[in-house]
Amino acid sequence: MRGSKPNVIGFDADDTLWVNEPFFREAELKFSKLLEKHGEEEELVKQLFETEVGNLKHYGYGIKSFTLSMIECAMKASDGKIDHRITAGILDIGREMLQKPVEVLDGVPETLAELKKRGYKLIVATKGDLVDQERKLEKSGLEKYFHHIEIMKDKQAVNYLRMLGRINTQPADFLMVGNSLKSDILPLLEIGAQAVHIPFHTTWDHERVEKADKNSFNELNSITALTDML
Amino acid sequence: MRGSKPNVIGFDADDTLWVNEPFFREAELKFSKLLEKHGEEEELVKQLFETEVGNLKHYGYGIKSFTLSMIECAMKASDGKIDHRITAGILDIGREMLQKPVEVLDGVPETLAELKKRGYKLIVATKGDLVDQERKLEKSGLEKYFHHIEIMKDKQAVNYLRMLGRINTQPADFLMVGNSLKSDILPLLEIGAQAVHIPFHTTWDHERVEKADKNSFNELNSITALTDML
Repeated sequence: MRGSKPNVIGFDADDTLWVNEPFFREAELKFSKLLEKHGEEEELVKQLFETEVGNLKHYGYGIKSFTLSMIECAMKASDGKIDHRITAGILDIGREMLQKPVEVLDGVPETLAELKKRGYKLIVATKGDLVDQERKLEKSGLEKYFHHIEIMKDKQAVNYLRMLGRINTQPADFLMVGNSLKSDILPLLEIGAQAVHIPFHTTWDHERVEKADKNSFNELNSITALTDML
Repeated sequence: MRGSKPNVIGFDADDTLWVNEPFFREAELKFSKLLEKHGEEEELVKQLFETEVGNLKHYGYGIKSFTLSMIECAMKASDGKIDHRITAGILDIGREMLQKPVEVLDGVPETLAELKKRGYKLIVATKGDLVDQERKLEKSGLEKYFHHIEIMKDKQAVNYLRMLGRINTQPADFLMVGNSLKSDILPLLEIGAQAVHIPFHTTWDHERVEKADKNSFNELNSITALTDML
């Protein structure tokens, strides 16, 4: 592997430890179905995306923010004449998402157990909603592997630096593992930490980046390959 | 003061460091004004409170949760026939709350500066929404006094124990300061930490408790009295 040997490994949570993005895709389809009188699926999903991104600054990430954006987008798509059944349907979509079972990805528990056994300090570094991420962590059964859980407002270089400061870790001793080039890889390279990209089949448009220098980080097909790489 | 000398002091944020609850009271009045066709203010506020408490398990604390509860409550109060202008009005109430200026309470910066100078390790231990609490902390100008910020899903004894574990602090060395007997005082006494109650003029009903043994903690009129007490 590239760089020196890290002793702290950070894991992104959604779509790195467990399934997440497909539930949002599913919710978007339900949303456009609810609003089918007011537009085509593709157009509605695009409007919803724009509403979400516009609201990130105020609402942040997560299901509650997504629900509020669905309601706002429904108002816009229906020219402010949203039917009350649509509002009720949107609240239901959000509440259902908050109660989804947690699907841990293949190989995750074994890999975490092995890395912990080898003496690495493992942490979770995730965006999203506090209550929801803690719920998922608890339901996942993975909490016991982690020394520290960091739920971040955003995943920019400055947020990672602050987090590393809190856990008294130098960037050079830190390796981040995640599915988003934008959030889990590039900001880490920027601060001199290491990063491993494990792509997931579904990525939210807002997490996509055009280009990344593939020589500066490793890409793995599965989390289980981490134990060989390290 | 009672007990041994602490070296870590935790501060609740809302209505201990800055004004919060009055903004919710104000929002409740705007909400009942929006819904005046569907009920009396007192009844609507009661229904909203019940909706919020019913949703705590799924949504947690904070403004986004409150906004979703207002929408749900409006659905109920209007027999599912919520007018779209009401929905739009509710979204506005929530967004306005998220952009309120932060009003730091009297004496807070001076007290934090003095305690930090005396060598205490100061932390924030607050419930609520991650994005919103970080926003308030940043706007307040108080961030520089704190060694650690803990945004908690809930403030029960077990949550405090976990937090103290993370910052390697024994309960006996910890003093918590806050305005809610239920969240900032009683759970701390339960785990053998110390606590100082600084009442605020407005308290959310959900934070009220019937009785507390006033011999087991100090009550101060103002945060500035902390420096004399310690």
